[in-house]
Amino acid sequence: MTHPPDIALARTVLAAQPFSALLGARIARFGDGAAELVLDLGSDHRQQHGYAHGGVLAYLADNAATFAAGSLLGAEVLTSGLTIEYVRPARQGPLRAVATVDAATTRNAVCRIEIHGPDGTCALAQARVTQR
Amino acid sequence: MTHPPDIALARTVLAAQPFSALLGARIARFGDGAAELVLDLGSDHRQQHGYAHGGVLAYLADNAATFAAGSLLGAEVLTSGLTIEYVRPARQGPLRAVATVDAATTRNAVCRIEIHGPDGTCALAQARVTQR
Amino acid sequence: MTHPPDIALARTVLAAQPFSALLGARIARFGDGAAELVLDLGSDHRQQHGYAHGGVLAYLADNAATFAAGSLLGAEVLTSGLTIEYVRPARQGPLRAVATVDAATTRNAVCRIEIHGPDGTCALAQARVTQR
Amino acid sequence: MTHPPDIALARTVLAAQPFSALLGARIARFGDGAAELVLDLGSDHRQQHGYAHGGVLAYLADNAATFAAGSLLGAEVLTSGLTIEYVRPARQGPLRAVATVDAATTRNAVCRIEIHGPDGTCALAQARVTQR
Repeated sequence: MTHPPDIALARTVLAAQPFSALLGARIARFGDGAAELVLDLGSDHRQQHGYAHGGVLAYLADNAATFAAGSLLGAEVLTSGLTIEYVRPARQGPLRAVATVDAATTRNAVCRIEIHGPDGTCALAQARVTQR
Repeated sequence: MTHPPDIALARTVLAAQPFSALLGARIARFGDGAAELVLDLGSDHRQQHGYAHGGVLAYLADNAATFAAGSLLGAEVLTSGLTIEYVRPARQGPLRAVATVDAATTRNAVCRIEIHGPDGTCALAQARVTQR
Repeated sequence: MTHPPDIALARTVLAAQPFSALLGARIARFGDGAAELVLDLGSDHRQQHGYAHGGVLAYLADNAATFAAGSLLGAEVLTSGLTIEYVRPARQGPLRAVATVDAATTRNAVCRIEIHGPDGTCALAQARVTQR
Repeated sequence: MTHPPDIALARTVLAAQPFSALLGARIARFGDGAAELVLDLGSDHRQQHGYAHGGVLAYLADNAATFAAGSLLGAEVLTSGLTIEYVRPARQGPLRAVATVDAATTRNAVCRIEIHGPDGTCALAQARVTQR
């Protein structure tokens, strides 16, 4: 890539992910080893007690990390591993997943992700993203 | 609970999760510290290269673990942490997430989850599930 | 506890850990949801290629997290789970493990830990610490 | 390597790790994607309450995974990430860390590790090991 990827390209990639379209995620920030995804919490995103499903939070963490790493390593990256700690249930949106690359080598980036909403921090995560 | 939860109850819980309904997950096995979720891989479940989105796999791992632990600890459980390692991309379904409780104390269970499809194992995961 | 634990108490606890004494870890900072452990890298801490053994880094991450959480939750805490991503091998010391509580509820804290040395960041970790 | 590595080579590698010698780990089983490390629990391995230190368990998990993966991928491997869930404190030894490769690609292996002792299972772990 001759230019670093920008937020317009990031939006194109996100729009090309059918699963992200199904969930309704938007990208609010992108570049310099960071990315922020936003999700309005609708009725479809919930588990049986009305909270955001853990899978929704894991999706946000995974995808935010891939974008943050992609801003440094280029678009051809994939998450090789993800750990998420659920802190407290989220009942209200919007949820914001903020990912930052905290360490990178030539082909790998380790990202930290914080997911928060109006109820406070709902999850903290860490991911390894690798160039394909 | 006077009786251990059975697969009929598990199906009721799964049906009460709007996010699981959105994704179309089914429960194929439940009981004795184990659970299996099945997902037909549709066009909505994919990322930009046509593979199952990592968030879909993370959802399956999280939810299968919760059911496996719930079969021992009762329905009022939640996943406190999840780690997933992506092994290889999955292009075809159905995907099957098989979770087993590999160690449990009175209020906690540690589960292992294997997700496989026609292309082989796509992810391995580990989760801690806790009684509320 | 009538007073929040201070660094003198933290040093007493560290000195009461035979494994920490065997490795030679010191505590450099403690309080307000943070802790820093320091380890001079001796010949005993290495693997077959002369780098710090991964187990040494995992020990530092685990222990720094316990102290950081203990500064908020009291001395009776234990780590329930730890994830560590190795970033690059460390050949020189001192190694510094800096842990911060990034989210806490009444009985749980999720900590992030960065381990760095003269060669740069060698590992990033995340841990859940729970009151006993 | 013209022959797959055998347990004699594994013992040579373990003996070349000063940190493993400091802790006193032995290798009891090696080959075909599996490895078992054994550790007699001495006074030096403990934390302030007399239990095996979490760092000892993390060391065992990390090292057992590296050997298990090395039996398939060759000696030049390193652990890129490790997640350990502590199940219950261990007061007595010997501790046994049994690692198996549960999924592998050409250059990566994902291992599961169970650590048990006379008191039962003390930890479950998962690791990614990569060819250098």
